[in-house]
Amino acid sequence: MTEVFQLHPEPDQYSFTFGGKEPILTVPPGSVIELSTEDCYGGQVRSVDDLPSVVCKFPFLNPVTGPIAVEGAEPGDILAVHLAEVRPRRDWAVSSTFPHFGALTTTHTTAMLHDALEERVWMYEIDAEAGTCRFSARNSDYVVDLPLDPFHGTIGVAPDAFERIVTVTPSFHGGNMDTPETRARATVYFPVFVDGAHLSLGDGHCRQGEGEVCGTAVEAAMATTIVVDLIKGSAPIATPRIEDDRFIMTTGSVRPLEDAFRLSQTELIRWTESLTGMDTLDAYQLVSQAGLAPAGNVVDTNYTMVAKLPKTVLDGASVWDDVHARLRRTGEEHLRGR
Amino acid sequence: MTEVFQLHPEPDQYSFTFGGKEPILTVPPGSVIELSTEDCYGGQVRSVDDLPSVVCKFPFLNPVTGPIAVEGAEPGDILAVHLAEVRPRRDWAVSSTFPHFGALTTTHTTAMLHDALEERVWMYEIDAEAGTCRFSARNSDYVVDLPLDPFHGTIGVAPDAFERIVTVTPSFHGGNMDTPETRARATVYFPVFVDGAHLSLGDGHCRQGEGEVCGTAVEAAMATTIVVDLIKGSAPIATPRIEDDRFIMTTGSVRPLEDAFRLSQTELIRWTESLTGMDTLDAYQLVSQAGLAPAGNVVDTNYTMVAKLPKTVLDGASVWDDVHARLRRTGEEHLRGR
Amino acid sequence: MTEVFQLHPEPDQYSFTFGGKEPILTVPPGSVIELSTEDCYGGQVRSVDDLPSVVCKFPFLNPVTGPIAVEGAEPGDILAVHLAEVRPRRDWAVSSTFPHFGALTTTHTTAMLHDALEERVWMYEIDAEAGTCRFSARNSDYVVDLPLDPFHGTIGVAPDAFERIVTVTPSFHGGNMDTPETRARATVYFPVFVDGAHLSLGDGHCRQGEGEVCGTAVEAAMATTIVVDLIKGSAPIATPRIEDDRFIMTTGSVRPLEDAFRLSQTELIRWTESLTGMDTLDAYQLVSQAGLAPAGNVVDTNYTMVAKLPKTVLDGASVWDDVHARLRRTGEEHLRGR
Amino acid sequence: MTEVFQLHPEPDQYSFTFGGKEPILTVPPGSVIELSTEDCYGGQVRSVDDLPSVVCKFPFLNPVTGPIAVEGAEPGDILAVHLAEVRPRRDWAVSSTFPHFGALTTTHTTAMLHDALEERVWMYEIDAEAGTCRFSARNSDYVVDLPLDPFHGTIGVAPDAFERIVTVTPSFHGGNMDTPETRARATVYFPVFVDGAHLSLGDGHCRQGEGEVCGTAVEAAMATTIVVDLIKGSAPIATPRIEDDRFIMTTGSVRPLEDAFRLSQTELIRWTESLTGMDTLDAYQLVSQAGLAPAGNVVDTNYTMVAKLPKTVLDGASVWDDVHARLRRTGEEHLRGR
Repeated sequence: MTEVFQLHPEPDQYSFTFGGKEPILTVPPGSVIELSTEDCYGGQVRSVDDLPSVVCKFPFLNPVTGPIAVEGAEPGDILAVHLAEVRPRRDWAVSSTFPHFGALTTTHTTAMLHDALEERVWMYEIDAEAGTCRFSARNSDYVVDLPLDPFHGTIGVAPDAFERIVTVTPSFHGGNMDTPETRARATVYFPVFVDGAHLSLGDGHCRQGEGEVCGTAVEAAMATTIVVDLIKGSAPIATPRIEDDRFIMTTGSVRPLEDAFRLSQTELIRWTESLTGMDTLDAYQLVSQAGLAPAGNVVDTNYTMVAKLPKTVLDGASVWDDVHARLRRTGEEHLRGR
Repeated sequence: MTEVFQLHPEPDQYSFTFGGKEPILTVPPGSVIELSTEDCYGGQVRSVDDLPSVVCKFPFLNPVTGPIAVEGAEPGDILAVHLAEVRPRRDWAVSSTFPHFGALTTTHTTAMLHDALEERVWMYEIDAEAGTCRFSARNSDYVVDLPLDPFHGTIGVAPDAFERIVTVTPSFHGGNMDTPETRARATVYFPVFVDGAHLSLGDGHCRQGEGEVCGTAVEAAMATTIVVDLIKGSAPIATPRIEDDRFIMTTGSVRPLEDAFRLSQTELIRWTESLTGMDTLDAYQLVSQAGLAPAGNVVDTNYTMVAKLPKTVLDGASVWDDVHARLRRTGEEHLRGR
Repeated sequence: MTEVFQLHPEPDQYSFTFGGKEPILTVPPGSVIELSTEDCYGGQVRSVDDLPSVVCKFPFLNPVTGPIAVEGAEPGDILAVHLAEVRPRRDWAVSSTFPHFGALTTTHTTAMLHDALEERVWMYEIDAEAGTCRFSARNSDYVVDLPLDPFHGTIGVAPDAFERIVTVTPSFHGGNMDTPETRARATVYFPVFVDGAHLSLGDGHCRQGEGEVCGTAVEAAMATTIVVDLIKGSAPIATPRIEDDRFIMTTGSVRPLEDAFRLSQTELIRWTESLTGMDTLDAYQLVSQAGLAPAGNVVDTNYTMVAKLPKTVLDGASVWDDVHARLRRTGEEHLRGR
Repeated sequence: MTEVFQLHPEPDQYSFTFGGKEPILTVPPGSVIELSTEDCYGGQVRSVDDLPSVVCKFPFLNPVTGPIAVEGAEPGDILAVHLAEVRPRRDWAVSSTFPHFGALTTTHTTAMLHDALEERVWMYEIDAEAGTCRFSARNSDYVVDLPLDPFHGTIGVAPDAFERIVTVTPSFHGGNMDTPETRARATVYFPVFVDGAHLSLGDGHCRQGEGEVCGTAVEAAMATTIVVDLIKGSAPIATPRIEDDRFIMTTGSVRPLEDAFRLSQTELIRWTESLTGMDTLDAYQLVSQAGLAPAGNVVDTNYTMVAKLPKTVLDGASVWDDVHARLRRTGEEHLRGR
């Protein structure tokens, strides 16, 4: 019998780091959790006149819901988080540029002598029925509906080595990877570094292009349903992995972007080896010809690249005893029964 | 009445640079050209025992067919090259590692103290009817059929500023971009730097993963049909662009990988501005939410990133008077009539 | 009257993060502190047979002495730390390679398919009288004396935004910058992010080449004397700065290395503006022609570049009321009187 | 008896590429050559009102004097070029920003959405007697004399593989390395790729900071005296090396900057191995503790890092039979006898 938990933080209960906080919920493996997240602006940007640099207070950016402790999780284990549903909580969402943030501007680290680009806010209309988010240009009357494709930009666990990492950073613990692959109906796998794993998530996106080039997505508060489970006894994983019905995926969240590519690809090759029994060079070859390599984000304090391999080339190999399929069923049953 | 040309080089007629060679064919805009290309190994690797470092002679790597002069092409123009058909000429293809080449090994530029990885060759069986290329592991009995998806890894024009660039390098002139997006039924647009443009192409790939992580694709000699045309009077383009039935695409071929991303995204934003009439920041926003950003190659002397925008968000904007659709029809009619 | 404090931690009193620890000493501005640090191996590597990967236990690497709270320090202030003396505590020091660490090897982030390079330890003989550290090759009889030039590879304050950062990482708070410029008789300036600043230091190096290419320096436990002071009312600084008798210096500790360069140069240009009254572009020009740009480290989780400007081009400008000269005198007087 | 040659090109005799030109002078090994070079602006910028983007015509930038063929030079040899004297030909020199060029601005490759920084020209007064170049700020009355330290920013040979490379690019053939280490009284060693080597040089700098952060140095036409020689029978070198009285140095001119660092360091380690007889890891260790790693340029189409090792740690090892000392003597004798 699947246990179902609710987690709907009060405004002052959000976290701004991975690590360094006591769990606000503890659940057994196999649980379903219905939870709420706030948008990356803490809900403070509600019109095109709400400039983030004015209405948001650093470092209170990118609130996450959690940490959620999973009973029995120990360092070396793998935490599986299935995103059964990610549903916008409002009929609007928001995006913006932000001074000194983004891939095509001087930033605090890519420091240059230019002034910051203009700070501008865009409001999107969300039509959950139609499955669209409507973009409206600010300086012309251009309007276009984009497909709704909700996911969490930020999802991760407490990091290793006593660290406490702000929620805007992605790294080996996950965090702000900002890849659209952590979308509804995917399962995300995390290395466990601390007892209980301490899962947190937030930064809901109604959709996002690959690379998140302006620095923000179509940001929204979300009503999300997840199913969590533990994988014990497997070889540890170095960085978060993702699985959906069609692909296995690995992530690399480091700088420079070459290294994010290298890390994600190396992880995918190692995974392919273990799933197919091939040696390293044969797996290298197969990934070279069959893999995909989209950018996640090229804007955050670490960059994220994703490496994807279609399951069709894996000859029916079972990934951790088909945990994805199992959690997907659990999620669907829960949503149907709701 | 479309003119049709044949270009089937003798072994000693291939080129190894972009720039610095006299045209071996001159055609008017609008022409169809049926041509042959050799594989990147010059056809010297024919079994798993033919190690490239032994059978290939540097710098005679990656032969291209061309240059083809297009009458009337002048610096500042845009050359459109529609790839009507890219068909493997043999029932086998080949891939390999190569010492000091690839994304996950010490190289001549990412110089480290490791010895080179093992050099290994893989032979693929090509089944054009079934549309597959069969991968066989070397050190186990793992076999899997991958979809045939042929394209030219190397396609470009003579570069600017009197340069002569080896065919293994991608840059502003195109060249060895190694992105699967330059596939059959796509149109590639190049900036013209010299009178006649001087198009060359080669390095046929039966398929390739994004990033080309091991350094080579499923390499094959190709029988290819292209349609060429000129776009005059448009604003010049900085780097090659690609269009297919679903996407407009831009490329950035520089190092580091961040800059390849930045360059491709900037070009896509500029293109979106001109197609939609939006201002820069509005186009930045739309691309941020609707764009795709796959790696082309992360192994060559420059890296290539691709930025893609679905035409569905362009509100029916016409790209250079629908040249892609027109060349696509010309190509189809030619192939049907053959 | 200068107050003098002693800080000699017990083995279990060392810290392994910046941030997240209570101060173990609190001092007023202007104080002299005599302190002890352990080497980056925690003193566990004592012969060429003590392989770090065996005798050291992750994450208990790179212990630091601190945090030291400075009374009255508030966010936005600048903490000045003069290194009056850095003296090796033993007549030997040690260096090593470390698996998956260093600039010329596959690492956890520059992930490749190579096996790790050989792990090897070198013992150095320290002759404080002669001012030398003696290098002895392991696989030949090559021996050479190198000048002793002691400094702290790791020195920094508690970071911003509730973060807790492991001591092997350099960033905006300082930390493991691994630049020989933080040597004896230099003054290091840090941005203050938390009340009390929370200074920690360790990772003594008898000397180090620029870039620290193999990943470790001539590592030694140190007996160090510092003088600390506060600068209030100045514009905040973004990253640590350094001053010695001849140069003003800025640091950038980020990835990629280009950005470390950009950040350090931007900071130096901004500092030059404020010291000379020139506008930004004039300062850009002067730094371009008169500046130095040595690598600090190209091995740590962030890379460090240093930007240096000789004081001779500053027309006698006073840096924060000559705090460096003042602290230098305080340090000398204290050492003479000891 | 040393032969002495004169090479003073007419305005239309300058080259703008390495490779692809016939020699304009052929000399035997051991020759002294007195030659003239023009500044990187082709002498067109003569006042603060001469904006380079207006008065210079792309691609006629950075003219070099050459190619000079050295009799008997064959691929695999090493060309030694001693810079006996580098003397400014005028009593003024010039520097500037240039739109979309420099380390702290959006460029054609680090493409961003900012407008270009202001284009500004600075005129320097050269006092050869006093050994100074006088900087005068443009927007204030700040004036300071900087030491004259003349060198050639661009010096190299014809590249490999039939390439023709513009003079603004540094690479394995040398070219626009823009490191102050190629200064008067240093010897520069180049790999030889074509018969005759085809040496060219230009881009004289009265001085330059490390990194050349704004993109240009104190640019001047030079009267230069070089001595050239061949080293045959040695193992080939991968990239240019430099030697002066105190240091051996290697260069890496690639992107990203990490790779320029890696390449220069790897070359220095390999050189140290061959000079000391140590194995690779022992040489890695010695370079790690004794080496210097200044930036050359972080602005050109490739970046240049330099790796330096003091000769004092080489135990008196002879570098190619002390060719540097020999050429230095030849140069001094020639200058004295003039």
